[in-house]
Amino acid sequence: MWLQRDISLRPRPRGFHLVTGEVLDAVPELGHVRVGLLHLLLQHTSASLTLNENASPDVRVDMETWVNAAVPEGFAWTHTLEGPDDMPAHVKSSLMGATLTLPLRDGRPVLGTWQGIYLCEHRDHGGPRTLTLTVNGDDA
Amino acid sequence: MWLQRDISLRPRPRGFHLVTGEVLDAVPELGHVRVGLLHLLLQHTSASLTLNENASPDVRVDMETWVNAAVPEGFAWTHTLEGPDDMPAHVKSSLMGATLTLPLRDGRPVLGTWQGIYLCEHRDHGGPRTLTLTVNGDDA
Amino acid sequence: MWLQRDISLRPRPRGFHLVTGEVLDAVPELGHVRVGLLHLLLQHTSASLTLNENASPDVRVDMETWVNAAVPEGFAWTHTLEGPDDMPAHVKSSLMGATLTLPLRDGRPVLGTWQGIYLCEHRDHGGPRTLTLTVNGDDA
Repeated sequence: MWLQRDISLRPRPRGFHLVTGEVLDAVPELGHVRVGLLHLLLQHTSASLTLNENASPDVRVDMETWVNAAVPEGFAWTHTLEGPDDMPAHVKSSLMGATLTLPLRDGRPVLGTWQGIYLCEHRDHGGPRTLTLTVNGDDA
Repeated sequence: MWLQRDISLRPRPRGFHLVTGEVLDAVPELGHVRVGLLHLLLQHTSASLTLNENASPDVRVDMETWVNAAVPEGFAWTHTLEGPDDMPAHVKSSLMGATLTLPLRDGRPVLGTWQGIYLCEHRDHGGPRTLTLTVNGDDA
Repeated sequence: MWLQRDISLRPRPRGFHLVTGEVLDAVPELGHVRVGLLHLLLQHTSASLTLNENASPDVRVDMETWVNAAVPEGFAWTHTLEGPDDMPAHVKSSLMGATLTLPLRDGRPVLGTWQGIYLCEHRDHGGPRTLTLTVNGDDA
């Protein structure tokens, strides 16, 4: 089976956010897939997706602190017209990546015990974010 | 349907380059896919692929400036036999990644308005780069 | 055909390790795939997967040196309960990524001459690591 759907993730402040539930709730048809893959594309260049710890919120705080230190607003940027948070957001988006593919098994994504899907919002006011979900699998 | 093809991307100078058109022109059969996935593997360890802004060329300039600052040639490298640009190129390749998967819909890749495919050339003289394209989709 | 299997990668010390052989030996059924995709998910948030040079071991040493400099243990981390190597490991895991998709052709993964699969072990004592392998392909 193939299934594809665009969803809108609600606006979030700059930082790293756990969105596993919001994503999976949008594709209940996953429940019929015996084995397959779920692909996620975030349709933006100033936000990103990654897998990381789903437990301690400190991890998400530290991810944000580190990425701001590694890709600072105070740098020799030439692309500054869209604000000081814009060009760093582009770099961070490529560092983390705007796509993610997860295995599916028995109607659920396969993830480690501590793994969750992060939306990494790199803009101060990114607004809602469009995510394209594609499911391919064996539903026999 | 499954389709797989190796293509050669023409040589580009060190930096970030928009290659969306060159890639898609190489797989016109995409036009028959109703829903599916397009996978890209760059067969190299000193260049990479990423999605980022397809509009302002400044973004591509700033990506290059940042990545050179983050992974400088002047560092405690031990692997220096192939030149000062070689080991930084390996690190940059893993930071950005040599693979990319995009959703397909109604004969075209799904991308955000501002998203394009970047070839990130991390060597001074990388030469042509081999890209393996794999299409899987429903062409019913 | 669809095939999915969890395997356990043997424990390795902190650093970058070539695991191409160990991974491929675990899915001999690949030999029947004419064209397809192999997806890898590492079920952990303190280790990662990447493609990089399969030849000189110096490259793997330098990758480790660089990533330790870029994501140092001595940083303003708040998440420190699990040891000084833990929070840097989370950041490194998202930088490299916990998933990888490779094309398959004529019973083998398509990789460049110099490309191999790296397990990036970011903990001092990470132990065995669980990897979920998913194969999708045309075995006609």
